[in-house]
Amino acid sequence: MNPYLKHDEWCIIEEGFVPENTRASESIFSIGNGAMGQRANFEEKFTGSTLQGSYIGGVYYPDKTRVGWWKNGYPEYFAKVINSTNWIGINVIVNGDELDLAKCKVDEFRRVLNMKEGYLERSFIAEMENGIKLAVKSTRFLSMVDTELGAIRYSVKPLNADATIELRPYLDADVRNEDSNYGEKFWEVVDTSCTPKISYIVSRTKKLDFHVGHAMRNFIALNGNIEHIQPEVNSSAMYVENIFKVEAKAGDEVTLYKYAAVISSLNHEKGSFPKVLDKLIDVAVSKGFDKMLQEQSDAWADIWKHSDITIEGDVAAQQGIRFNIFQLSQTYTGKDERLNIGPKGFTGEKYGGSTYWDTEAYCLPFYMVTHGQKVARQLLLYRYKQLDKAIENAQKLGFTGGAALYPMVTMNGEECHNEWEITFEEIHRNGAIAFAIYNYVRYTDDKSYLVHFGLEVLIAIARFWAQRVNFSQEKGKYVMLGVTGPNEYENNVNNNWYTSTIACWCMEYAEETINYVKSADPAKYKELAEAIKFDEAKEVEKWRDIRNNMFFPFDEKLGIFLQQEGYMDKEQILVKDLDPEERPLNQKWSWDRILRSCFIKQADVLQGLYFLEDRYDTETIKRNFDFYEARTVHESSLSPCVHSVLASRIGNVDKAYELYLRTARLDLDDYNREVKEGLHITSMAGTWISIVEGFGGMRVRNGMLTFNPLIPDKWKSYSFKVWFRENILKIVVSSTQITIFNESESSLTIKVYGVEHKVPGSSSINVPVQKQLF
Amino acid sequence: MNPYLKHDEWCIIEEGFVPENTRASESIFSIGNGAMGQRANFEEKFTGSTLQGSYIGGVYYPDKTRVGWWKNGYPEYFAKVINSTNWIGINVIVNGDELDLAKCKVDEFRRVLNMKEGYLERSFIAEMENGIKLAVKSTRFLSMVDTELGAIRYSVKPLNADATIELRPYLDADVRNEDSNYGEKFWEVVDTSCTPKISYIVSRTKKLDFHVGHAMRNFIALNGNIEHIQPEVNSSAMYVENIFKVEAKAGDEVTLYKYAAVISSLNHEKGSFPKVLDKLIDVAVSKGFDKMLQEQSDAWADIWKHSDITIEGDVAAQQGIRFNIFQLSQTYTGKDERLNIGPKGFTGEKYGGSTYWDTEAYCLPFYMVTHGQKVARQLLLYRYKQLDKAIENAQKLGFTGGAALYPMVTMNGEECHNEWEITFEEIHRNGAIAFAIYNYVRYTDDKSYLVHFGLEVLIAIARFWAQRVNFSQEKGKYVMLGVTGPNEYENNVNNNWYTSTIACWCMEYAEETINYVKSADPAKYKELAEAIKFDEAKEVEKWRDIRNNMFFPFDEKLGIFLQQEGYMDKEQILVKDLDPEERPLNQKWSWDRILRSCFIKQADVLQGLYFLEDRYDTETIKRNFDFYEARTVHESSLSPCVHSVLASRIGNVDKAYELYLRTARLDLDDYNREVKEGLHITSMAGTWISIVEGFGGMRVRNGMLTFNPLIPDKWKSYSFKVWFRENILKIVVSSTQITIFNESESSLTIKVYGVEHKVPGSSSINVPVQKQLF
Repeated sequence: MNPYLKHDEWCIIEEGFVPENTRASESIFSIGNGAMGQRANFEEKFTGSTLQGSYIGGVYYPDKTRVGWWKNGYPEYFAKVINSTNWIGINVIVNGDELDLAKCKVDEFRRVLNMKEGYLERSFIAEMENGIKLAVKSTRFLSMVDTELGAIRYSVKPLNADATIELRPYLDADVRNEDSNYGEKFWEVVDTSCTPKISYIVSRTKKLDFHVGHAMRNFIALNGNIEHIQPEVNSSAMYVENIFKVEAKAGDEVTLYKYAAVISSLNHEKGSFPKVLDKLIDVAVSKGFDKMLQEQSDAWADIWKHSDITIEGDVAAQQGIRFNIFQLSQTYTGKDERLNIGPKGFTGEKYGGSTYWDTEAYCLPFYMVTHGQKVARQLLLYRYKQLDKAIENAQKLGFTGGAALYPMVTMNGEECHNEWEITFEEIHRNGAIAFAIYNYVRYTDDKSYLVHFGLEVLIAIARFWAQRVNFSQEKGKYVMLGVTGPNEYENNVNNNWYTSTIACWCMEYAEETINYVKSADPAKYKELAEAIKFDEAKEVEKWRDIRNNMFFPFDEKLGIFLQQEGYMDKEQILVKDLDPEERPLNQKWSWDRILRSCFIKQADVLQGLYFLEDRYDTETIKRNFDFYEARTVHESSLSPCVHSVLASRIGNVDKAYELYLRTARLDLDDYNREVKEGLHITSMAGTWISIVEGFGGMRVRNGMLTFNPLIPDKWKSYSFKVWFRENILKIVVSSTQITIFNESESSLTIKVYGVEHKVPGSSSINVPVQKQLF
Repeated sequence: MNPYLKHDEWCIIEEGFVPENTRASESIFSIGNGAMGQRANFEEKFTGSTLQGSYIGGVYYPDKTRVGWWKNGYPEYFAKVINSTNWIGINVIVNGDELDLAKCKVDEFRRVLNMKEGYLERSFIAEMENGIKLAVKSTRFLSMVDTELGAIRYSVKPLNADATIELRPYLDADVRNEDSNYGEKFWEVVDTSCTPKISYIVSRTKKLDFHVGHAMRNFIALNGNIEHIQPEVNSSAMYVENIFKVEAKAGDEVTLYKYAAVISSLNHEKGSFPKVLDKLIDVAVSKGFDKMLQEQSDAWADIWKHSDITIEGDVAAQQGIRFNIFQLSQTYTGKDERLNIGPKGFTGEKYGGSTYWDTEAYCLPFYMVTHGQKVARQLLLYRYKQLDKAIENAQKLGFTGGAALYPMVTMNGEECHNEWEITFEEIHRNGAIAFAIYNYVRYTDDKSYLVHFGLEVLIAIARFWAQRVNFSQEKGKYVMLGVTGPNEYENNVNNNWYTSTIACWCMEYAEETINYVKSADPAKYKELAEAIKFDEAKEVEKWRDIRNNMFFPFDEKLGIFLQQEGYMDKEQILVKDLDPEERPLNQKWSWDRILRSCFIKQADVLQGLYFLEDRYDTETIKRNFDFYEARTVHESSLSPCVHSVLASRIGNVDKAYELYLRTARLDLDDYNREVKEGLHITSMAGTWISIVEGFGGMRVRNGMLTFNPLIPDKWKSYSFKVWFRENILKIVVSSTQITIFNESESSLTIKVYGVEHKVPGSSSINVPVQKQLF
């Protein structure tokens, strides 16, 4: 842990300059707008440790795969969202010496991420080696309104002497990725222009020919008044800069306004870049910094209106959950169905910035409930559009007849992961993708999605499962051999309960959906069945046969589902009996030892009980929870939330709270000393789930919202927002009472603790908190 | 397949220049002398496709590991024997134009590897672009007598015109490895000297500071008479050359003698290199080329005397087996216990040139029987000296108390392999290392080895197994979870029969050896027990408990040992029912599909029946053979030999012959179109085993050599040599009769078909071949 940030309800605040924390802060203070994002690098030169990073959604590079020993079926490349042109840079030269915080005495350093209004602010006083004391303040944001624009206001004030101040805003396309597999650079420049008015660089990726264009226009103000100074210009092959020289008196404030436009060939014709950039810069300049910032603030107010969670009585928790909502909301906005949510969003390079099953299993509920049906539907369409690639992916592994295996990691639908035990075996991801469709339809009642998109995906997934099992003569049952469940501390196991369960569920839901579509839109059904050569009678019969004769490992004595066949052959030790010195296991133990142990990285059987909760009674959930929680080390950031929800489900609020705490401030307090690599964006959704589905006990059953709220002892109250179909609700839970505000005009009937309540439009109801539910 | 070589009993012959075969021939015509070796690269410049390679035993580079996703316990580097200074190079310039076979019309190209006498010869007529026709002939060898010397005789004869011939012999230290993980070069030069007399380069590896020194001295002869010409000299940072210019008349033969010395810091003080090189070159010059070549021939005659196998009636088979014996004999001579046998020997870069379990499981029998006890003992000592590293290796994985896990791949004892399923799980290698000790002592009766070296290794290995199992409460038995057996088409399985069997055998043999050493040398035993803190009572008791309560998967219905628990859950398909288009599976199927199939890459259960044959009756071996052979695709070059021996064991000579054919000419006929990467050196020993232990049925039982010969229908007769303790035997098997020559003076009692025969010194006995043995 490294809890160096100040607690505050709406802001993330760093006070004092500690160079060792630079990379961590670069991650934590990241800003984005769904279309692009960047780490909180300094504008001025910094020769200390830094990971410079500025990323554009959907612009990626197929970096040649790095493996020890090639296996047939491995992908040729690992797609990564790559660091692109650095457009925030402003070199500051004072009396000929360059400002560099690694070489100054730094005082009053303060960095603030204003989450309420969506901007990053930084101020400090630097005493330079030449004796000049300089007060600097910068404000920066990526516009949520004009998503191809960013703006910086950067002020410099010599405090102790007159000084010649040079400000050199630049664009630098000669950037690298620290995680490039073979140390290659990914960009080459196509076109540059550098004029006192507008400067730009157009560059292209060396593979795939993505073009990106970055433009800037800069203005100088002295003590608040714009000075019409023509900058000098300077450029080289991959670099353009403007040079402003100002003779400042001590106490004068010299301010640079830097407006930047960032575009890519995803959205614009390659030939049109200069024109488009020009227009965009005009938009920024005509609005001006203050108006843009006001619009930013308004846009964020709108986001918070649907998504805020408050926690009364615990500022750290309040800050933590808002940080998570803020980061999720600036990573993905649902405006572009080609984009998705990488595990680190736009905050680092690790994991390639691609799409994992995290999206469906963790992120979808968050976006669906807080950002509305349209945004959730975009996430589903992303996979629908990649169905052909998922079928290709399955073909590469030997599957036929339209079976689809969605990739473990992807950018464009093709598999990128290159470990056989994950790539080929962690196939339960297919289940999450089907479940997301179910989850979406259950929540939104948007059954038309099934007709036009969902069914095709569901059939392709069911086809995969039907081929992936085989009939064991030995057992007289269908078995699923060689899989890796969600618990990646087991690899290549047989009959993983979760995978087999979700596989059977997929086949069942596919059949149910076939029946629905057949009756709702017979023509559409016929058209699809023909297009995909679907032999309904034969295929559905096979699915039923598999479901009815599937082998599920079960321990009769303990009455628990077994994570996989043979799990009980392992030495059974409990997490509580582990020497704390040996944890986290993934840092202290060899992989061999981890694999052979009974310890579980993340929810596996419990993931199934979470997804398919309604099928299991409380006693079953409790038995399995008690057994597996005692063996789970939660060394995935995705794990505690599922356990937390189930702990709430069985009424164990203390356990639920303990588990909630493990993710809520994971990044802010840097639990694993790794936040410098980027934020755990996708698992932030898990924290939200722990509150809303966990403590709040929110479910949708038979089309109706239901709540079973609990409240942790430490909290005075908490509230969350729910955007359910036509209504916006605010649920406030105190230690005694639940208040449900209906912020919409139409009334809504919900259930609280199993009892129906009608909440009229624009009003609220109160229900007392129940203490003993279970 | 690509069978382009001419059949001949003693030579490998290539006729005609086919550029596409260059890399393959470079591998096949490789020469070595145990201390160093090289691919059969051309001396003159060649701009066609080539893999230049010259390797020095024991000089390696720790190349940074390349993996996709790091796992705790992975080694930091992969050690590879690296390409070092190219000392064979001779640039040939005729009338100012450089000879380059890629740019000439080439006639009468002929390359011969003379295996009887141990040299490489090449001749051709090149019509150069400038119209000169040139007859070229080269002869090259690495001395088996002076193992730091090599020599080349290189003759050039202009045929159709007078010509100015420049011969530029050089040393070039600026070499690279094609398989460098990150494209790095490994060498830097320490010292060079270039004089008309002697020239040398001393270079060092960038890591580990290995020094190597290469020197050359060159002489020119015109039409057979040495000309005392002073060469010009020329050098650059990593390169030295001599330049001889001769005005030749048409028909004149200009011959260059190039003597080279190659030394390393393994054998010489770094400071002494220039002096040592000087002395070595003097030795070469004073002997002269012809004498050195004669000594080479004599040395090889001596090797063949102990190791030759003849096959009458099948020239291809004769050539094949001699090629295998030749390559094995020039890869490892047993002179240096620090060296070992890499899977590709000195013939290519793949697999890093390191030591695998191939050495103990396959190569030891060959060297032990054909090269004698001393050589075999060196192979055992190699592992003994690396015991500390094997203990360290086990510690890294979490084992304690002196448990040793020998590495899967190594150069200096440290693990180099970087796939978890192999590195951490293919632990049966430990069993092969113990078995080699048993095998050696059984054959040689050198029990003193146990006292001084063997026991310490055996205890450390037994300790490993005792910790590697765990007691399953579920089964009430010890289990061995998460292993990979010899069949690498299964990974991370539970209770692999072979691994569990060899583990128990190791614990048993360790106990037996403890008892032997205790009685043979109590003081030595006590000293060892104290040194390694051996608690005999407790530890041996534990080993017994494990052996007595180990779980072994067994199929009652079929009466076969199961390769692993759950093997019968797989879909049972036979190799004969596979579409030939789908083979080899490792090229046609995804890894996923291979893993889930029942198909077996290489002997697994059968490896155990081969090692521990005496424990199983013929019916048991037959049942298991029939079951597993039907499911084995033999996609490892190490597989068919074990099956072949067992097929002979159960009297199935046709099957044994079919399996024998799969390895005998694997490289010569380039079955898998991959010989260009190097030869399958270690599996060559398997071919030898198939004949001697398979057809010949040779075993040692109760200290006595026994034979149960069979002969394939296609052969008229075959013979092999056996160096057993004090005696050299030659066993000749025809279709009717077995003749056993005792080439030593002392008599020896052996068994043939279970009947004892005394073979007097320097004489022979005859026994009729039995047709029905089983």
